[in-house]
Amino acid sequence: MKILIINSGSSSIKYQLIDMKKNEALASGLVERIGEKQSHISHKILIAEKSYQKMVYQEPIPDHYQGLRKIVALLMNPEKGVITNKAEISAVGHRVVHGGENFQSPVIITEQIKDAIKANIPLAPLHNPPNLIGIEVAQSIFPQAPQVAVFDTAFHQTIPKKAFLYALPYKLYKDERVRRYGFHGTSHAYVAEKAASCLGQSLKTLNLITIHLGNGASMAAIKNGQCIDTSMGMTPLEGLVMGTRSGDIDPAIPFYLADYLGMSLQDINTLLNKESGLKGICGINDMREVLKKYEKNDHLAKIAIEVYCYRIKKYIGAYWAALGHLDAIVFTAGIGENSHLIRGFCCEGLEELGIEIDKVKNQTAQKGICHINTSKSKVSILVIPTNEELRIARETLKVIQSGSFEEGVH
Amino acid sequence: MKILIINSGSSSIKYQLIDMKKNEALASGLVERIGEKQSHISHKILIAEKSYQKMVYQEPIPDHYQGLRKIVALLMNPEKGVITNKAEISAVGHRVVHGGENFQSPVIITEQIKDAIKANIPLAPLHNPPNLIGIEVAQSIFPQAPQVAVFDTAFHQTIPKKAFLYALPYKLYKDERVRRYGFHGTSHAYVAEKAASCLGQSLKTLNLITIHLGNGASMAAIKNGQCIDTSMGMTPLEGLVMGTRSGDIDPAIPFYLADYLGMSLQDINTLLNKESGLKGICGINDMREVLKKYEKNDHLAKIAIEVYCYRIKKYIGAYWAALGHLDAIVFTAGIGENSHLIRGFCCEGLEELGIEIDKVKNQTAQKGICHINTSKSKVSILVIPTNEELRIARETLKVIQSGSFEEGVH
Repeated sequence: MKILIINSGSSSIKYQLIDMKKNEALASGLVERIGEKQSHISHKILIAEKSYQKMVYQEPIPDHYQGLRKIVALLMNPEKGVITNKAEISAVGHRVVHGGENFQSPVIITEQIKDAIKANIPLAPLHNPPNLIGIEVAQSIFPQAPQVAVFDTAFHQTIPKKAFLYALPYKLYKDERVRRYGFHGTSHAYVAEKAASCLGQSLKTLNLITIHLGNGASMAAIKNGQCIDTSMGMTPLEGLVMGTRSGDIDPAIPFYLADYLGMSLQDINTLLNKESGLKGICGINDMREVLKKYEKNDHLAKIAIEVYCYRIKKYIGAYWAALGHLDAIVFTAGIGENSHLIRGFCCEGLEELGIEIDKVKNQTAQKGICHINTSKSKVSILVIPTNEELRIARETLKVIQSGSFEEGVH
Repeated sequence: MKILIINSGSSSIKYQLIDMKKNEALASGLVERIGEKQSHISHKILIAEKSYQKMVYQEPIPDHYQGLRKIVALLMNPEKGVITNKAEISAVGHRVVHGGENFQSPVIITEQIKDAIKANIPLAPLHNPPNLIGIEVAQSIFPQAPQVAVFDTAFHQTIPKKAFLYALPYKLYKDERVRRYGFHGTSHAYVAEKAASCLGQSLKTLNLITIHLGNGASMAAIKNGQCIDTSMGMTPLEGLVMGTRSGDIDPAIPFYLADYLGMSLQDINTLLNKESGLKGICGINDMREVLKKYEKNDHLAKIAIEVYCYRIKKYIGAYWAALGHLDAIVFTAGIGENSHLIRGFCCEGLEELGIEIDKVKNQTAQKGICHINTSKSKVSILVIPTNEELRIARETLKVIQSGSFEEGVH
C-alpha cells in the first residue's frame, strides 16, 4: 500500500510517497516558489535500498493545483516514475499545523473537518490556510482516495490545564482559545515511540523528555506515553531559541520596543519571528554555520550557542521536575541528530540529576539511533532520527483501517 | 546608630527607622495617596520588644516633600516620638528599583549617581522617577546625612550572559540595554544570607534556590553565594504567576490580542500587568482570598493555584539544572512564609530530585525561620521571613562605614 504525504505551505508543497510495507519513501520532493515566474521542483526517487536519485526542474507553477499535478506527473513518469497509476495511491495524509482543541488524533477529512480547520485559522494564520489549499487540490486530483488530516498540535492535547493555561484573564481561554497548544507533535510522538522500542519498554511505562532541534525547536515532557508539557505555546514562537525566533522573552519587551524605539506591532512581530534567535545574536540562523564560526572562536557565535544550550538545559530541569521521574532524554531533528557539541553542552553538569553523557559515544554517534549516555547514567540519552512523514503515513493508515470515517470534531 | 529607610513610590512613601544595634525598626509606616484630597498615613512605633503601637492619620499631603516632613514630625513627636532630633538619623537608605548595568552594589548618592538613576528611567519608568523624588526630598530635609541607594537589581548583576541575554538582535542589548535584570534582589540576598547562617555554612559554599512569593513573585538561582539566574527579566513582568501579572507567556500573544480583539499596546500592557496572574484566572489577586476560595472547592481558584505552583515547580527544576547541585530551597515573603499549601504543592513529586518536604513540619511551621524538609531530604527546605528594609539598612551602614564615597558608576 502506498500513501502520499503532503505538507502544503503558502508557496510550496513538500511531499513523500511512502510504501507502507517497506516503511520507506519511494519518492519525495519539494515544489517551491509556487506562483512566481520560475518555480523550483526537486524530486528524489528510490533507485536501490536507501539510495536515491535526485532531479531538479525549473518551470512556472502558477498555483497549488498545478503543483500537485506536476508531482503526480513526476510520480507516474514513464521512465523515472514510481507508480503507473494514480489509483495506486491508497490515501493522502496531510500535515495540518493547528488543530486547536478540536483534534486529539488524526481524522478522515470531511466538509465538517475542513470547517474546523478553517475555524482554527486565527490560531495559525500563516499555516492553516495553505494546509487547506493542499487538502482541496488533493481532493480534486485524488477524488477516490481518503484524505486524512494529521495535526501538529494533536499529540499535545493531553497536556493538563495547569501546564497549558497562561495566567491571563480566563475568558481569553474560554472565548478566544488563548492557551498553550504546542507543535512538532508528530516528531515528538515518533521519536517517543522509537525510544520505547529501542529501550525495550512499553511507551506507557516511560517518562521521556524529547528535544526536537531543527530550524524550529521544541521540547516535550512525556509521562507514561502522554505529553504533559511542551515548550512551544499558543504559537511556535515560545520556548527554545530557534534559527530566527526568539523563544521566551520578557512579555514587556514589546512595550519597550514600541515606546522607546517607535516600532509598530508588525515590526516587533517580524523582529521576534524573523530577526531573532541565533540570527539575532550572531547574525546567522543556520546552526551548521554558527558552529563553524564557533570553532573559529567567534565571540558572538559562542554567545549564541551558550544561550541556545542553556535554555535547553533549563527546560530539561523544568520537565524533570514536572515528570517527577525521568527515564530518557531524546535528541532529534537536524541539530539534535547531528551536533554532538550541542548535545554535550545541553547535558553538561547534570550528573547529579542522573544525566551523564558519554563523551566518546556522543562524539562518535553515527547516523541512526544511538545511545550516548554512560553506563552509570540513570537516565538514558538517545539520538533518534525523526521521520514526521512516516509517522503521518502510519497515522493515516491507522485511521483508514479503523474505518473511523465518522470520527469528527469534538 | 539609626538609619532611615525610604521606599518612595509615585504617590506613596514607605519608611522604617532602624536601630542598627538592635537590628530592629523603632518606627515604620506608609504615607499613601500623596497629592490627593485626603492622604492616608499609618505609623507604627516600637513600644516594647516586638510590640508596636499603630496610629492612623488622614490629612492632605500635597507632595513627597510634605510627606517626608510629616514622617519626620511623627518620628520626633514630643509624646509618641522615637527620636528627639533629626540629627539622630545617621544615614538615609533608599530603595531604588532599577540600577541597570551600572550598579552591582549600593552607593553613596552623588549628582553623578542621580544622573545614572535618571538614565535608567526607560528601564523602570514607573519606579525610578519616584525613587529619585524620594532621594531629592530626603537630601533637602537631611542635608547632613549621607544618602545611600540600594538597588533591587544589584544582586542579580552576577548573572552570566548566557542567562541574562535574550535571543534578540544583539544590538538591542548593546545599544538599548534589553536584557534580563531581575528584581527583589534585596530580598533574595537577605534570605540567602540567613539560609547560610541557619545551615551553619558559608554562603560562598552554598547553592540555593530562593523563592520570593509576595504580591510580586520571583525566584533566584544562587551558586556559591552569587546569583546566576532569576525569573524576573528586563521588567518585573516575566517569570512566575503573580497577583495581577501574567509572568511567562508566548511572546506572540500580544499580536493575537491586537489582531483579533483590536486591543492597543497600551490595553495589552494593562492586561498583562494589572488584569492577569491570579486575578486573571480566578478574579482575585490576593492569595489569602484565593486560598479561602480553594478551601471551598472553587473551580477557578483551584486552577489558579495549580498554575501558580506548577510554574514554580518548573523553575525549581530549571534552576536545579542550572546550578548542577542544590543545597537548599528557601521560601520567603507573604505567601512563601505563610502558606503551607503553596509550599507543599511546589515541592510535591520532587523526591527523586532530592527534595522532600515534611508534611507535618510544613503545616505546623510557625512565624520565623523553619526547616520543613524530611530528615532524608538531600535538599534543605527552609522558610525564612524576609526583611528588605533591614538589608537596605545594613547595606547603607556598610557603605558609609567603608567610606566608599568615591565609588561610583561603572
